[in-house]
Amino acid sequence: MASSALKRIIPLFDRVLVERFAAETKSKGGIHIPEKALGKVLNATVIAAGKGLKQKDGTHVPMSVQNGDKVLLPEYGGTKVEINDKEYFIFKEADILAKWE
Amino acid sequence: MASSALKRIIPLFDRVLVERFAAETKSKGGIHIPEKALGKVLNATVIAAGKGLKQKDGTHVPMSVQNGDKVLLPEYGGTKVEINDKEYFIFKEADILAKWE
Amino acid sequence: MASSALKRIIPLFDRVLVERFAAETKSKGGIHIPEKALGKVLNATVIAAGKGLKQKDGTHVPMSVQNGDKVLLPEYGGTKVEINDKEYFIFKEADILAKWE
Amino acid sequence: MASSALKRIIPLFDRVLVERFAAETKSKGGIHIPEKALGKVLNATVIAAGKGLKQKDGTHVPMSVQNGDKVLLPEYGGTKVEINDKEYFIFKEADILAKWE
Amino acid sequence: MASSALKRIIPLFDRVLVERFAAETKSKGGIHIPEKALGKVLNATVIAAGKGLKQKDGTHVPMSVQNGDKVLLPEYGGTKVEINDKEYFIFKEADILAKWE
Amino acid sequence: MASSALKRIIPLFDRVLVERFAAETKSKGGIHIPEKALGKVLNATVIAAGKGLKQKDGTHVPMSVQNGDKVLLPEYGGTKVEINDKEYFIFKEADILAKWE
Amino acid sequence: MASSALKRIIPLFDRVLVERFAAETKSKGGIHIPEKALGKVLNATVIAAGKGLKQKDGTHVPMSVQNGDKVLLPEYGGTKVEINDKEYFIFKEADILAKWE
Repeated sequence: MASSALKRIIPLFDRVLVERFAAETKSKGGIHIPEKALGKVLNATVIAAGKGLKQKDGTHVPMSVQNGDKVLLPEYGGTKVEINDKEYFIFKEADILAKWE
Repeated sequence: MASSALKRIIPLFDRVLVERFAAETKSKGGIHIPEKALGKVLNATVIAAGKGLKQKDGTHVPMSVQNGDKVLLPEYGGTKVEINDKEYFIFKEADILAKWE
Repeated sequence: MASSALKRIIPLFDRVLVERFAAETKSKGGIHIPEKALGKVLNATVIAAGKGLKQKDGTHVPMSVQNGDKVLLPEYGGTKVEINDKEYFIFKEADILAKWE
Repeated sequence: MASSALKRIIPLFDRVLVERFAAETKSKGGIHIPEKALGKVLNATVIAAGKGLKQKDGTHVPMSVQNGDKVLLPEYGGTKVEINDKEYFIFKEADILAKWE
Repeated sequence: MASSALKRIIPLFDRVLVERFAAETKSKGGIHIPEKALGKVLNATVIAAGKGLKQKDGTHVPMSVQNGDKVLLPEYGGTKVEINDKEYFIFKEADILAKWE
Repeated sequence: MASSALKRIIPLFDRVLVERFAAETKSKGGIHIPEKALGKVLNATVIAAGKGLKQKDGTHVPMSVQNGDKVLLPEYGGTKVEINDKEYFIFKEADILAKWE
Repeated sequence: MASSALKRIIPLFDRVLVERFAAETKSKGGIHIPEKALGKVLNATVIAAGKGLKQKDGTHVPMSVQNGDKVLLPEYGGTKVEINDKEYFIFKEADILAKWE
């Protein structure tokens, strides 16, 4: 249910929908992400990404992150969204501090 | 009556007129939108969309949403409009967080 | 008298001079505008419109509203002008939320 | 004396030097300006106008008002200048709300 | 002494070094400047002018004032500089309200 | 462990991940960095650098620092990140005050 | 020691590292700088200058000051740096008010 709802949500422009993860995780390539990449930051997975910032001619600036990317976000600044009782955040791409490979 | 008034309202530039929905809804393609896509956001339907931001040469940047789109908006930031005792909101397109497909 | 004074006033650049209307009105094409398009907005008629924002080469960006247009404006933000004991407001075009057709 | 001093003052860039008028006046073309175009605005005559905003190539954006124009200005925002015991104001062109023809 | 120090000071970019004058003065062309061009403004003489605002290609936007010009400045906004016990001010060209011819 | 996690972190856009150093250090070329380059600044080593600010066409502005560079940063402004119990900071390139050669 | 550390510091972009001087000094060309060029300003010598503001194509806007230049800076605004117990300041080029020749 949740996953089907998530599949239908499309962030607009340069926004991404992310889900926080707190425990150990493996990234796409099987890489270990340290449990404690914390401080004033938030470890999260990109669930859905927009098309990119809209330009004056109607085209979009390509995004630098995609679905499944593990990213590091500032603790504050995103918009909290609850979908089927789970908490997600919407951030602008420019707010993403770093990604894990 | 309300609908005829709504048909005559044209948001200017990159603005959209939206109507909030709180309960379960089906999107255009018959897709189930979860009741609880809430948090600090607002589920709404686009009732009318402007032509897009006006450029220096008088043309408009094409809009990324159209009438009938289900969108996710921040809880604050729009302008409340009451038409025939119903409450609507006017937002700028760039404030729309995401749309549901 | 008032009307002749109004005919001589020319808003500069992207400004419009508007007159608020509170009661039922018919638009140019005979369309009924609902009495209660209210909330945090202002129903008004454009009395005079500027030439449009001046560009660096001295030309003007064409305006999107013209005399006689019924428009929806934010409750605050314009400049109040009294001409022959009647109250008018001057707004910038970009502040106009929507127009009625 | 005052008039000769006024002739020598040249507002820089997109500025105008104006003199407030409070009573009935006739405009250049003999048009009656209403005594009460007041509210939060200021009726004034342009005494001297700059060459226009300076561009990066050293040329100037042409001005939209000239000496003798009757203009409507916001009540606050200009800089008060006293020349030979008379009070004048310097405003930027973009602050001029409207002109009277 | 003071004059030789003043000759060696070169304001950077679009800045001018000015010296306030309070009493009657004659301008370069022998024109009388009124004693009382005051209010919220400052009568001053340009002592040294910069090359103009630096552009991205390293060239400079030509200045609109030069040494010896009598100018009208806002009462606040400049930076006070004392050279050999005399008080001067450094302003940006765009802050100059008007010049006297 | 820490080093492998660090290798996988990629700052986005014009950001750098840095590690503060407080004691004497030798730079890449064996140069002595003074212990006391302090004040309101922070001595740090660049651990990872982004691709550079993203442009409208999707390309990146080349970075002016690279991994291993010793840099001088303002005391405040970065975002603290803890990776495997060690403290790092993420700064934007434009905030870097200077680098040591 | 201090001088060798100073030689290795490279301000980034449009920044300069300066050292304040309070007493009488002779400029490069043997010119006397007045002891009292004070007020709300700071007399300083440029110790190191950056390459200039980075442009979108990766090139730099050429700097208008170089090492050894005597400059006039605002009293506040720079970042204090202590190198080998001596106090220096880092300023952006655009903050430099004037230079002495």
